[in-house]
Amino acid sequence: MPSTKDEITGFLASEFPQSRCVVESVGGSAATISFTVTSHDLRPGGTVSGPVLMKVADIALYVAILGEIGIVPLTVTTSLNVNFLRKPAADKSIVAVCRLLKLGRSLAVGEVSLYSAGSDALVAHAVGTYSIPPRDVK
Amino acid sequence: MPSTKDEITGFLASEFPQSRCVVESVGGSAATISFTVTSHDLRPGGTVSGPVLMKVADIALYVAILGEIGIVPLTVTTSLNVNFLRKPAADKSIVAVCRLLKLGRSLAVGEVSLYSAGSDALVAHAVGTYSIPPRDVK
Amino acid sequence: MPSTKDEITGFLASEFPQSRCVVESVGGSAATISFTVTSHDLRPGGTVSGPVLMKVADIALYVAILGEIGIVPLTVTTSLNVNFLRKPAADKSIVAVCRLLKLGRSLAVGEVSLYSAGSDALVAHAVGTYSIPPRDVK
Amino acid sequence: MPSTKDEITGFLASEFPQSRCVVESVGGSAATISFTVTSHDLRPGGTVSGPVLMKVADIALYVAILGEIGIVPLTVTTSLNVNFLRKPAADKSIVAVCRLLKLGRSLAVGEVSLYSAGSDALVAHAVGTYSIPPRDVK
Repeated sequence: MPSTKDEITGFLASEFPQSRCVVESVGGSAATISFTVTSHDLRPGGTVSGPVLMKVADIALYVAILGEIGIVPLTVTTSLNVNFLRKPAADKSIVAVCRLLKLGRSLAVGEVSLYSAGSDALVAHAVGTYSIPPRDVK
Repeated sequence: MPSTKDEITGFLASEFPQSRCVVESVGGSAATISFTVTSHDLRPGGTVSGPVLMKVADIALYVAILGEIGIVPLTVTTSLNVNFLRKPAADKSIVAVCRLLKLGRSLAVGEVSLYSAGSDALVAHAVGTYSIPPRDVK
Repeated sequence: MPSTKDEITGFLASEFPQSRCVVESVGGSAATISFTVTSHDLRPGGTVSGPVLMKVADIALYVAILGEIGIVPLTVTTSLNVNFLRKPAADKSIVAVCRLLKLGRSLAVGEVSLYSAGSDALVAHAVGTYSIPPRDVK
Repeated sequence: MPSTKDEITGFLASEFPQSRCVVESVGGSAATISFTVTSHDLRPGGTVSGPVLMKVADIALYVAILGEIGIVPLTVTTSLNVNFLRKPAADKSIVAVCRLLKLGRSLAVGEVSLYSAGSDALVAHAVGTYSIPPRDVK
């Protein structure tokens, strides 16, 4: 039972208000989200901090999974592996594009490419695994 | 040229004031830090969010490296791999214990064990790599 | 100074004769290789063993990097992260498609998608990092 | 229902004869195995190849898990993350020490430290996850 962009947007707003992520698109085992960078998200040198990128990657993966299985709050991250590749721009949003690699009965695995808005040079790349509660798989 | 606990504490306070991490000990290719959990750090279900754990793991690794090489701000994370193992307590601090596995000429690798204060059950485990600027190695 | 498919094929044959990997294509920060599965590569249950998949992923990454920087034997793996997604067919070759995410001065990072020949369902996905010796970067 | 060192040794000999790993000890959520390096395991430069180290790490994790849950052949690797830290000696066995970080209902996570026999300098470090079939958990 997939959920729509509006349903996921509403769920994030009520349950994860501090995430500040905008769902740009979701569906087809994929999702794109964006995140507006503020001064709190920067580290010395004027670049977006690593933990902020990890948070955005984690949420992109979560959104892509919810888009497939519906709003299942007990879906939780079990692992996240992030490579930091280039300094993100301090004055651009972060855009995260997630593609699910596997959606199994109890585990989902996906990869996330992170960019500074307006550039196609990767700033980071993540692969993560979520544990999903038992459900009926078609 | 190692740096001391006081030097690193001062550096974090001036450069990473939002980190809210306390250096408990540093030296001998290791570091222990603690992080007081607030309501902003929780996710639905009353548990500490994954990105908060990743941030604490990243800083523990940074502190352990600065303890060996001195205050080198250009030291940056190149990868972080985190496994989430158990739900952390919402009302306990997070304690992160880092041990460096390698301190090379241009890369440092370390592992971090994360606990809820007062418990010896791991809540998460991380392995991360930092790129360190060229320097004289003894 | 990139190297060609023939140069890399010759290099692998002389230096890594036991790799048994065939370079299908290389160039444009990417590479595709194939690996013929034999009975020695199987594990109980009639599936290709995980270490074999890891070896093929590692070589795909190596080939993609050599395709960009030329034959540089001292290029060595520093990390490899593999997710095993589906059971590979025992009687099909493994095909590995690598795309470089970053080719820096001293580090290269790439991702590898592994398939059973003739199927577009991922059997495994890997992200790896190679350390590359200092060289002139254009 | 844990299994003993002898039971696991017999199981590996019959099901994974090509593994060539010797179980040195197992129990207490841990295991130590050794692997005799032959010329087939070396790569140019006279060092043990990365895929061989990954194989040994994978088996150490498998042995530690079997030591806790008994001989359960359907236990399979779902992810392995390896960092290569120092060149292993070409003429020494590889010793792998595994410690389980979590043994859950359907997932086990462990870390593995790899050494050249007789040295306490890490040559590689791995963290891996196994999927374990449903069973009764005490």
